[in-house]
Amino acid sequence: MAGRVEEMIARAGRAFSERDAELATKTIDLDAAVNRAEIDIDEMCLRILARRQPMASDLRFVTLVMKMVTDLERIADLAVNICERAIDLSRQEPFVVHADIPKMGVLVESMVRDAIDALVSRSSEKAWEVIRRDDTVDEFYHRIFGELLDAMRAEPARVHALIHVQSVAKWLERMADHATNLAELVIFMVDGRDVRHPKERGSG
Amino acid sequence: MAGRVEEMIARAGRAFSERDAELATKTIDLDAAVNRAEIDIDEMCLRILARRQPMASDLRFVTLVMKMVTDLERIADLAVNICERAIDLSRQEPFVVHADIPKMGVLVESMVRDAIDALVSRSSEKAWEVIRRDDTVDEFYHRIFGELLDAMRAEPARVHALIHVQSVAKWLERMADHATNLAELVIFMVDGRDVRHPKERGSG
Repeated sequence: MAGRVEEMIARAGRAFSERDAELATKTIDLDAAVNRAEIDIDEMCLRILARRQPMASDLRFVTLVMKMVTDLERIADLAVNICERAIDLSRQEPFVVHADIPKMGVLVESMVRDAIDALVSRSSEKAWEVIRRDDTVDEFYHRIFGELLDAMRAEPARVHALIHVQSVAKWLERMADHATNLAELVIFMVDGRDVRHPKERGSG
Repeated sequence: MAGRVEEMIARAGRAFSERDAELATKTIDLDAAVNRAEIDIDEMCLRILARRQPMASDLRFVTLVMKMVTDLERIADLAVNICERAIDLSRQEPFVVHADIPKMGVLVESMVRDAIDALVSRSSEKAWEVIRRDDTVDEFYHRIFGELLDAMRAEPARVHALIHVQSVAKWLERMADHATNLAELVIFMVDGRDVRHPKERGSG
């Protein structure tokens, strides 16, 4: 499931930058397998909980997997959204996509890949690296957003296309949030430390 | 937790329509308790799974609660986003918020409330009613989005404020998605039927 999601992000990024409607359509087709995997993994986890009654760290692992599949499935949905925009834009007059979007895409893809690696290798260190990169993604988003606003004011006729670019930037930012959620869950699994909402836990 | 989230949605809607920065700030303060509740409920569920080893429908209930708190927490985060926009807009020149936003807000609030009622009363019928309302929210969003695009093209100087209104519409639409997720989980809990991704399950 994770491998497919990673592939979907990479392809969605390419389809959008290259205005490749065919690649976008093929990528959207991958979503069905991800959805099916979410259901299958949940069922499997419930069976394990019912029959094997795992304890301590195994119990934590199984319940966290049930949370993680939700994040993975939503990342795939966001990749589908990007592909839909790629198809829409491929029908419009060509225009230069904001130069930072592909860079942001590469960064987000690396976060999702590393969050999954962190899970597989049970490495909280790797998970922390994912969380730290989230700030850079936020900076990308705010910079792109500001520049797109300026472009909209300057060229109102391009508002529609520019709003699409803004949506894609927003979806990349949300993918990074889901990668961060995954990383936080890995840290909880490995170290037994819940690092969500640091303020409410008094740890900074 | 659910009651607090409901209250946050209602207050966020009011703060945004009435450009009430004080109410917005107070509403943002409620988020800490929701975050704390997410962590506490997860811990409680893990303890129940470890010590009581619940079977069948109880097991399903506990694991679904662990998924549901994630949706509730994200709805609260979206309410915080709306409050932040309310504060930002309260500092700008007054303008008329799109008339459909408050209507959309009321509809979304009812979906979250009914999804929670469905959970508490274990009613899959009520959960289906929530899912059916999601299409109306999507229609609201697409209509508002189209009208805001037209307004941006007509008055480029107002692009910034209009983008804020568009963001709020988008967040309401995402809250409705989370309410739909909650409702789908309730149906799985009550009927044992996984209604996520209907296409992949061959049930239409």
